[in-house]
Amino acid sequence: MSTFKLVLEYDGTDYAGWQRQPNASTVQAVLEDVLAGIAETKITTVAAGRTDAGVHALGQVVSFQTDRRLTPRDWLRALNTRLPDDISVLSAESVPDEFHARYSATGKLYRYRILNRSERSPLLRHRTWNIYKPLDEQAMRVAAVQLVGRHDFSAFECMPTDNDNPICDIRSFVLQREGDLLDLSVYADRFLKQMVRSMVGTLVEIGQGKRPAAEMVSILDGRSRSAAGRTAPPQGLYLVRVDYEEGSRRRGNDQAD
Amino acid sequence: MSTFKLVLEYDGTDYAGWQRQPNASTVQAVLEDVLAGIAETKITTVAAGRTDAGVHALGQVVSFQTDRRLTPRDWLRALNTRLPDDISVLSAESVPDEFHARYSATGKLYRYRILNRSERSPLLRHRTWNIYKPLDEQAMRVAAVQLVGRHDFSAFECMPTDNDNPICDIRSFVLQREGDLLDLSVYADRFLKQMVRSMVGTLVEIGQGKRPAAEMVSILDGRSRSAAGRTAPPQGLYLVRVDYEEGSRRRGNDQAD
Repeated sequence: MSTFKLVLEYDGTDYAGWQRQPNASTVQAVLEDVLAGIAETKITTVAAGRTDAGVHALGQVVSFQTDRRLTPRDWLRALNTRLPDDISVLSAESVPDEFHARYSATGKLYRYRILNRSERSPLLRHRTWNIYKPLDEQAMRVAAVQLVGRHDFSAFECMPTDNDNPICDIRSFVLQREGDLLDLSVYADRFLKQMVRSMVGTLVEIGQGKRPAAEMVSILDGRSRSAAGRTAPPQGLYLVRVDYEEGSRRRGNDQAD
Repeated sequence: MSTFKLVLEYDGTDYAGWQRQPNASTVQAVLEDVLAGIAETKITTVAAGRTDAGVHALGQVVSFQTDRRLTPRDWLRALNTRLPDDISVLSAESVPDEFHARYSATGKLYRYRILNRSERSPLLRHRTWNIYKPLDEQAMRVAAVQLVGRHDFSAFECMPTDNDNPICDIRSFVLQREGDLLDLSVYADRFLKQMVRSMVGTLVEIGQGKRPAAEMVSILDGRSRSAAGRTAPPQGLYLVRVDYEEGSRRRGNDQAD
């Protein structure tokens, strides 16, 4: 038995997200079908982030175990030959059997890309959230800083379950503008379901002057999803990178996305 | 009768290029159909650059004349409401009746975007030409400089006709790398058919070491298309900007693309 780690890029536009589900095309289902074809037996994969429908990945990490004896280089070539053109394996490596793409992760970087201009963009229509009126970026920065640190993020969790641990540690939240594009980059040890998109939706309402920047603290403290803003649409969100400790091992099963 | 100038962005992926043709979806046909719906009469448009199938535009310029009395702002709104999401009007303005999007143009900027990395990119698959092995950028720069200036560009013209004037003045040819992306930006007074893509295809062969950089001069001097390299694929090409003189007028009909 060998364990492999893959780094994937995908265009999430035509998928119902990462996770396998009945009657829908998902990245996991397509990848596992291709893996099964190569290994000639069923292979189950685990992803670092269970991205939602329409969300993209620049560096999703996936792990799987198999008896099929192929080198990482052979896996990479065999996969890229067979995968559709909206999914690509960027790297493949052999890892210790304890490695688990989700539980071993120590941090993840997500980027949310806003196109802030008055006319829609054909070339970026599946890659950004288009906000037509100018955003008050300074107010958004002031509010974003309030989210940094170790907090209970229940206010930004979609459909929580009783077992969920709502504590996350946001290590950085950076806004960068280049022309009409406003990128929000969030790095944390873990994320709750739709947490980035709820935070971005709330920040945009602040940038639009619908809420004062100072409200962010009370939203966070209130722990109620209904107090926060709308969920930003999926096509602006990218899972950019997942980090692991050197020679990483499973850290327990207390993590979720 | 009023004359209007539109600036368009479009995703060329699903179009057989700009120019109207039978049995194919083209940007001109879609735009003219929408214009006719607004004006309630046929409207003929002229574009600055007749982009080929799969080629994109960030700033295509289109002119048309009409008796329909609408402000530029009303044209913009009416068009963007009706156009499909892969075509967008970025600006509309009223111009002198002598204005002609193609004949009045004094210069055009095209960009060709190469993705130079070993694995294909799902997110950039319709936006770049993927060259898998590292390119010798320095050799490409040396060769590109040879193309700058006023020359007979017959060596880079696809399907020339007897009437064509093969003389173009390339004012700048700049290569810029950012990570895996290599952008080639060419500014000229005019371009011949598929000229940018033939030049890029030849430069890539130089970057791959298939030809020495010095060969560019003899290819140019030889004026034979068969001596140059392959035509780069369309999805990496963008018409970025078209320039006009202040209060621009028709300059004659000696221009082509």
